[in-house]
Amino acid sequence: MLSKDQLDRLRVVLVATRNPLNIGAAARAMSNFGFLRLRVVRPYDVAFREARSAVGAPGLLADAEVFSTLADAVADCSLVVGTTAVGSRQLDHPVHPLDAGGEMICGHLAAGRAALLFGSEKRGLSNDDLSYCHWLMRIPTREEHDSMNLGQAVAVCLYELIRTPKVTADRHAGTDEQCIGRELDRLERVLLQALAAGGYTKPGTETATEEKTRRLLRRLTLTSADAETLTGMFAKLGRKRD
Amino acid sequence: MLSKDQLDRLRVVLVATRNPLNIGAAARAMSNFGFLRLRVVRPYDVAFREARSAVGAPGLLADAEVFSTLADAVADCSLVVGTTAVGSRQLDHPVHPLDAGGEMICGHLAAGRAALLFGSEKRGLSNDDLSYCHWLMRIPTREEHDSMNLGQAVAVCLYELIRTPKVTADRHAGTDEQCIGRELDRLERVLLQALAAGGYTKPGTETATEEKTRRLLRRLTLTSADAETLTGMFAKLGRKRD
Repeated sequence: MLSKDQLDRLRVVLVATRNPLNIGAAARAMSNFGFLRLRVVRPYDVAFREARSAVGAPGLLADAEVFSTLADAVADCSLVVGTTAVGSRQLDHPVHPLDAGGEMICGHLAAGRAALLFGSEKRGLSNDDLSYCHWLMRIPTREEHDSMNLGQAVAVCLYELIRTPKVTADRHAGTDEQCIGRELDRLERVLLQALAAGGYTKPGTETATEEKTRRLLRRLTLTSADAETLTGMFAKLGRKRD
Repeated sequence: MLSKDQLDRLRVVLVATRNPLNIGAAARAMSNFGFLRLRVVRPYDVAFREARSAVGAPGLLADAEVFSTLADAVADCSLVVGTTAVGSRQLDHPVHPLDAGGEMICGHLAAGRAALLFGSEKRGLSNDDLSYCHWLMRIPTREEHDSMNLGQAVAVCLYELIRTPKVTADRHAGTDEQCIGRELDRLERVLLQALAAGGYTKPGTETATEEKTRRLLRRLTLTSADAETLTGMFAKLGRKRD
């Protein structure tokens, strides 16, 4: 079983959810399994208000934090995991099956904060959303019908996190030293400025470069100290070119 | 992973479901995880028709079998498992946690047919429904909020059945010799007749005796041959008293 502290370190992040019933269902599954920290990014306003005021809505829905960007929603998390039910689509990210991924997240929650992302009902997570993820977790649905209902996907993922026994050597244990989203964002900004100043970024390729950079920085799993060092270096490089 | 044959031997049985959205959600989770045999008992007619005709309803919903009694719905199954999210309620049945129960079901599916029962949204499975179960399986929700959404409960249980790896020595393997619901019903009927004829059943206690008998016969996990022998014996006893 996860400890109360571990439960408390997970952020369930719903990105651009459309259907209020799905927001409510996600919140209910969270409450069933003891995860009480919900964040929503760019919710359809009406849908979110409806879900919040629904009869019997769990208390955690009233406490949900609302963000206008995913970057802000994961700024204090040292691990960001995207969920997908898609098997075949070409994905640049490492994809772990749900059981292995669940163990990695639980290990991380022993000391660090983690965000678990769920995309919109129609399209799932966008490429831009995915660029904030360290890796992806796949629910083992069958190929002929791989797309899951959002509330059910949340329930299955959270059940995987709480099911016992979870005896893991914790190679993936999060530490307080691992850098959080905010530090990565700062590093990314400084690096992009340097790349632009240095002529690396060609006109029209800004978005691609940005996404590429963001993914690369996530793959490195930097400590806070490393991130600070790199930020200092890139800041210097950016200035030198002026 | 479960084999195609194993997947095909499970019957998901929804008892007295009210909300068409929940029937649809259950069917979708079944389709996601590869279980295609749905049975519904006493569905609210309008709800069931709505669910069947909903846009994007999985094909298995059209093929769903409808029964007016639970006895008929599990008549060809040699294992009947009830699901519950309730932790504290006094239950006469053996209750297994979801992971252990899941292994037992998978083992049984290696050779025998199993039914997995889900009760109505409001009340879950009734005592009468439970009396048809060999044992119960509990989803590990937290005490403060134990009642799950029906569609999510189905998704979590089915995920537990298909998740890998499932290496089990199969002490609980079902065999073709294990008797099925229909044989148990016959045995029960003959025994109840004998009990009534023998003066065991006091006026006003018929229902209690019936339920007690039904539970007892399920606990015995009889083979078909044993059930037939007992049926013959009780038939004799019933006649002898005339």
